[in-house]
Amino acid sequence: MGEFELIERFFRRPAVRSPLGAGDDCALLAPAPGMQLAVSTDMLVEGRHFLSTVDPRRLGHKCLAVNLSDLAACGASPLGFTLSLALPQADAAWLQPFSEGLLALADAHRCELLGGDTTRGPLAISITVFGEVPAGQALLRSGARAGDELWVSGHTGDARAALEVFRGTLSLPAAVFEAARARMETPTPRVALGEALRGIAHAAVDISDGLLGDLGHILRASGVGATLDAGATATLVACGDALEPARRLEFALAGGDDYELAFTAPTAARDAVQAAAAGAGVRVTRIGRIEPGPGLRVLDGEGRPLDLRFGSFDHFAS
Amino acid sequence: MGEFELIERFFRRPAVRSPLGAGDDCALLAPAPGMQLAVSTDMLVEGRHFLSTVDPRRLGHKCLAVNLSDLAACGASPLGFTLSLALPQADAAWLQPFSEGLLALADAHRCELLGGDTTRGPLAISITVFGEVPAGQALLRSGARAGDELWVSGHTGDARAALEVFRGTLSLPAAVFEAARARMETPTPRVALGEALRGIAHAAVDISDGLLGDLGHILRASGVGATLDAGATATLVACGDALEPARRLEFALAGGDDYELAFTAPTAARDAVQAAAAGAGVRVTRIGRIEPGPGLRVLDGEGRPLDLRFGSFDHFAS
Repeated sequence: MGEFELIERFFRRPAVRSPLGAGDDCALLAPAPGMQLAVSTDMLVEGRHFLSTVDPRRLGHKCLAVNLSDLAACGASPLGFTLSLALPQADAAWLQPFSEGLLALADAHRCELLGGDTTRGPLAISITVFGEVPAGQALLRSGARAGDELWVSGHTGDARAALEVFRGTLSLPAAVFEAARARMETPTPRVALGEALRGIAHAAVDISDGLLGDLGHILRASGVGATLDAGATATLVACGDALEPARRLEFALAGGDDYELAFTAPTAARDAVQAAAAGAGVRVTRIGRIEPGPGLRVLDGEGRPLDLRFGSFDHFAS
Repeated sequence: MGEFELIERFFRRPAVRSPLGAGDDCALLAPAPGMQLAVSTDMLVEGRHFLSTVDPRRLGHKCLAVNLSDLAACGASPLGFTLSLALPQADAAWLQPFSEGLLALADAHRCELLGGDTTRGPLAISITVFGEVPAGQALLRSGARAGDELWVSGHTGDARAALEVFRGTLSLPAAVFEAARARMETPTPRVALGEALRGIAHAAVDISDGLLGDLGHILRASGVGATLDAGATATLVACGDALEPARRLEFALAGGDDYELAFTAPTAARDAVQAAAAGAGVRVTRIGRIEPGPGLRVLDGEGRPLDLRFGSFDHFAS
């Protein structure tokens, strides 16, 4: 199977938004009048972001999901994406489920495959995703204000729990593990929530490297600090009952691979936040507050700061 | 050196066009009113697209150049790009010249680094580039008409000659080799020519997989055929005097890695084509003609079709 047959067979779709679509030197795209284009890119490498044994269908889903999560964090609506794929060989038994998982998620978000590149090489998948957002309404990391409440969507820490099972440092009941593994392998990008939070949230970020680490991006960009309630954050872990308390807290705060949104909003917007979450079909949890002074403190039930040693995930430090 | 320090140290630039630039979950970008966004993506993998011994500065140049070449083929003006980088390690001695080579070419084209992703993994570089083109004026592969003349910019075949020296199948005088090697390692994207050909050329493609192969894209997309003059194409190879005639023709027609433009224009536009090329500072060569019937024929000096066995480059067929 050659490069062109590979594209034709597994990745060709009728063009919808792009007047050109895959097939020319460039794809052509125009955001609607008054809209800005939001662009993000993420690369997934075998052995680093996924195990060689992962189901290709789940991998196809995940590599687009992590990119859609960046759009969600900006409140942008998906338009399309480009795909660069380095493959050890053109293997139909792998490409068929991979492309199905990828394109099923793309179709669910009406996110069009605009173009791409395939080459032989160690398995790596690089996606650049495009969305649109009304000019001036993007959710930024820099908008948090002292007094804002801090929220997290869905669950955090479960992907990490699944990873630790694969690493052999944790054992979970089979059904609990399968649920955690699904969180790791097929995360749900919070696109509808991000769109619904436009005009409500002051700042947002997507949680890919751990809640504390990614929250740190908001604090630095906004020039503020935050206080977190350890008890509230511990409830973020769906499989938390199966974990000892210290690990449950660590996974919630520094698990990684969560693809949830952390965002801030004024107290007066509590009902609006809950309504946005209900409309998007995802739970949200209030876990703390933005403070004027710098720093990030996690307080126990008696209001005492915890001494936490775990940090954020860094591809070159770990 | 961690991931964030790596980005800060080697890739941070002041934002110009993007209201946000690298640093938030997404970059925000808006094409000017009446403009379409042109998008293309290319991934370069060590051992496949470049040798492990390549000068990192030249590699930085090349991985953006091959993407700018796609914009050029559409007549689009560069706006910005995203960079995904998988690296075996965070090595400053490599990153410094790589980023300098990359950003020097970016600056020369006012093409802004909008965002990116770095991860540990086998060396792979994936770039998605954005340009803008007045709505409806993009140069497409599908616009060629019978009677059009066929043109090629610059030189083809020299990158292939350099590659064959590395492969040990060819020997060249040192100065000739260095010039060919520069063509392979630091191709010049024909951006200014692409822009100047808007409204003049009927169809265009960039030559990355060999002239015949990429010209085939125009012929299929336009539903036409072409006749090429072997004598004219042989003059495309800058180092042609150092090659035996059969190899010179093969390298010109099927060399690969050329990053020149092949385009068609009506006979009446000859002067306009030459003026566009002069303005862009690049030579253009008329090598044939578009025909109504399908197929691609290369004719010798007596008008007899040559029987050519070499084909286009395919990452999964070769």
